[in-house]
Amino acid sequence: MFLKEEYITRREKLKKLMTHGLIIFFGNEESSINFKDNHYPFRQDSTFLYFFGLNEPGLIATIDLDTNDEIIFGDNLSIDDIVFTGPVESIEEQAHNVGVSQISPSLGINGYVAEAIAKGKQIHFISPYRPDHVLKLASILNVSTTEVRDKESVELIKAIVKLRSIKSSEEIKEIEKAVNTTVNMQYKAMEMATEGLTEANLYGAVQDVALANGNSTSFPTIMTINGQILHNHYRGNTLKKGDMVLCDCGAETYSCYAGDLTRTFPVDTKFTHKQKEIYDIVYDSYITAVNLLKPGQLFKNIHLASCKKITEGLMALGIMKGDVDKAVELGAHTVFFQCGLGHMLGLDVHDMENLGEQYVGYTDTLKQSTAFGFKSLRLGKVLEEGMVLTVEPGIYFIPELIALRKSENMYMEFIDYEVLEHYKDFGGIRIEDDFLITKDGYRKLGNRLPTTSNEIEEFRKHKVRF
Amino acid sequence: MFLKEEYITRREKLKKLMTHGLIIFFGNEESSINFKDNHYPFRQDSTFLYFFGLNEPGLIATIDLDTNDEIIFGDNLSIDDIVFTGPVESIEEQAHNVGVSQISPSLGINGYVAEAIAKGKQIHFISPYRPDHVLKLASILNVSTTEVRDKESVELIKAIVKLRSIKSSEEIKEIEKAVNTTVNMQYKAMEMATEGLTEANLYGAVQDVALANGNSTSFPTIMTINGQILHNHYRGNTLKKGDMVLCDCGAETYSCYAGDLTRTFPVDTKFTHKQKEIYDIVYDSYITAVNLLKPGQLFKNIHLASCKKITEGLMALGIMKGDVDKAVELGAHTVFFQCGLGHMLGLDVHDMENLGEQYVGYTDTLKQSTAFGFKSLRLGKVLEEGMVLTVEPGIYFIPELIALRKSENMYMEFIDYEVLEHYKDFGGIRIEDDFLITKDGYRKLGNRLPTTSNEIEEFRKHKVRF
Repeated sequence: MFLKEEYITRREKLKKLMTHGLIIFFGNEESSINFKDNHYPFRQDSTFLYFFGLNEPGLIATIDLDTNDEIIFGDNLSIDDIVFTGPVESIEEQAHNVGVSQISPSLGINGYVAEAIAKGKQIHFISPYRPDHVLKLASILNVSTTEVRDKESVELIKAIVKLRSIKSSEEIKEIEKAVNTTVNMQYKAMEMATEGLTEANLYGAVQDVALANGNSTSFPTIMTINGQILHNHYRGNTLKKGDMVLCDCGAETYSCYAGDLTRTFPVDTKFTHKQKEIYDIVYDSYITAVNLLKPGQLFKNIHLASCKKITEGLMALGIMKGDVDKAVELGAHTVFFQCGLGHMLGLDVHDMENLGEQYVGYTDTLKQSTAFGFKSLRLGKVLEEGMVLTVEPGIYFIPELIALRKSENMYMEFIDYEVLEHYKDFGGIRIEDDFLITKDGYRKLGNRLPTTSNEIEEFRKHKVRF
Repeated sequence: MFLKEEYITRREKLKKLMTHGLIIFFGNEESSINFKDNHYPFRQDSTFLYFFGLNEPGLIATIDLDTNDEIIFGDNLSIDDIVFTGPVESIEEQAHNVGVSQISPSLGINGYVAEAIAKGKQIHFISPYRPDHVLKLASILNVSTTEVRDKESVELIKAIVKLRSIKSSEEIKEIEKAVNTTVNMQYKAMEMATEGLTEANLYGAVQDVALANGNSTSFPTIMTINGQILHNHYRGNTLKKGDMVLCDCGAETYSCYAGDLTRTFPVDTKFTHKQKEIYDIVYDSYITAVNLLKPGQLFKNIHLASCKKITEGLMALGIMKGDVDKAVELGAHTVFFQCGLGHMLGLDVHDMENLGEQYVGYTDTLKQSTAFGFKSLRLGKVLEEGMVLTVEPGIYFIPELIALRKSENMYMEFIDYEVLEHYKDFGGIRIEDDFLITKDGYRKLGNRLPTTSNEIEEFRKHKVRF
């Protein structure tokens, strides 16, 4: 948690960006696994954390833009609870810690909002991503559960995005802490990987590093010898010579800031010749993108520059052919690079994704594409100083996708499906790092990790950390 | 997953226990952490797993008791999904694997149920513990979200409890696998613990063992130097000489069966004299309870026998006083042992808790008490061959509870609050093992772990596993 003053300042800035009405912020509830009282690790809503900092379940906060009233709604624990949870600060103390002086029992929220509605106040809230919030909102607003999502406040969303997009120095410190734990997670996997271990063995060890040094992971770790499956969560395979391991993982600090890094490395101490060729294309694409990072650049253009590098590289290998610019314009590269170059990073690993990518990564005039390969580009807009984002190009040979595109006779002008046949079982490679946009360019966050194919091989041979 | 025949047999048994109507089984959905597509590790609903075995999100199954129709509702993945998830078996193949021949797209469920309602069929379902199921049920049954819970089928619940309470030999093998991984988690913590490490360090290492050998943990691991907090999830404390560590953890196998064990051990190689005295009382209570395990015994009586042992022991130390039987009858021991002796174990760590403890642990004539210290006794009824359950007595010195009871002048006849003053900061001790009820008694599940205070000290000194 930051100092009380930080939260007060954030709320003041929010109020200045908005006009009238009552804002409701829903803190998260516990989330049940297989019965009510068996809970997944609690994760507070990030916007609630940003403005109110409190990391306990079951809280709601309101800001009345007209009267300036700020209230935290929540219930103190009974002795029956305390036996299980231990002593917890009272709601009053918790509210005081973040500069809020008014509190109310949870049940008060319905009457309070009803009164505001009766007075004709606009009610501002962000669209819920958890079903319990849909139920709560329907009850509080007295509308059906299907109507809830239509009533989100775009004014509120835009104000939150404006504030959360530019990270303060305290936030950057926290993100860098998360990245550094993530660096250690990556080192752990690269140190440990050896023939005969399973993906699950590496997965467990990497989770250990995250859990021993912070809250948790910022998303479920991807630890796979099938890197071509972008969000692969199976981990039953045994590592064998010739395989590559793709490890995409992120730590979450105690203050809930996220890291997000990917490395792909051979189970042997060296890549095969074929693996190294593809790896070096991905690295080329990565470094091209990184060198373009600076305020004023359109991230969509950086994405396209990295797509072109991938296309050029695959053309050099004979997998692709024809005109690079035209190939990328028509999306031929999406047979190999199906997703976006990167996304913002902060309290969420895809920062603010719940607020809507059209507001977070795009603008009123720059719309997100719905085309295959572009719809997963979560960030397209102009970069600004203080943004934190990932750069994560990759090349993925997905047998099902290749077969589909071939059967559709797609991209015949740009893809040599016969050459491609030799890569069908290749797998996938991704390189990902986290960057802060500075006044003149960028700063890569966190301690150094092996990144080029030579550095990776060097590390796999000698296991010496930078 | 078990053989297809196992699921067919289970469903046949269920049909025989019921009469008329349509049963709906809801498989679980993905559960969002901090934005829609960031998911907690998927956990299938246990009843769905028991009867249909499929471990993918978004499935619904129905059994029409009158026509014998069994249908699985679900949707095949598109290429956009497969890029992220890799190839997944079709719904048809999945259904075939568990002996179901009819399938339907997800959207079909609303019309199918509406038709059944129109025909006057009773609709059977179990009360949802996840809010997305409340939303779904309200939509399917065309009732308000607040009405959903009132409509659960007690006939269905009782039939499920009857079947799931008695474990098959295949299930027992899976539970024992979970217990054995849990044994290794316990060994890991006891091997590793040393002055200067944090609770989080041990927590991470224990998670590693669970994740490297199965699905996950069966509940969030409790790893704490404050064992008196029954479900403590804070893990920021540094271990120091004189502390005890309470580790309560359970592995979940890939087939989703649970283990659940607790050990309490000193950070030093030896307990202090005071710690050993309390430990030995808990062990006495544990072994008394274990020796009473056999078919025909009322578990509530075993709980009371263990409470009496605790009371006797605390009387010998001068913390309690007066008549043992009367003290337990009036609940004086609940100042030190606030929870139940044990619970059933299976696909859920508190097996079937979502079906309602009154149905799982009690009967129409034996009702669950609502008194403090008894309402957490999840199991009270007569033991039967094939049940699997935990035995987990403990002594917990909870400063807030002691202060409250003293201020209320409660149990003055049975508690010497002056002597108790010297134990206020003692902490808490629990010992927990998992047992199968056999024809003549019981079998302790899993490999051997140090259990007595001498065995624990021996292990902490020499770190030699049994």
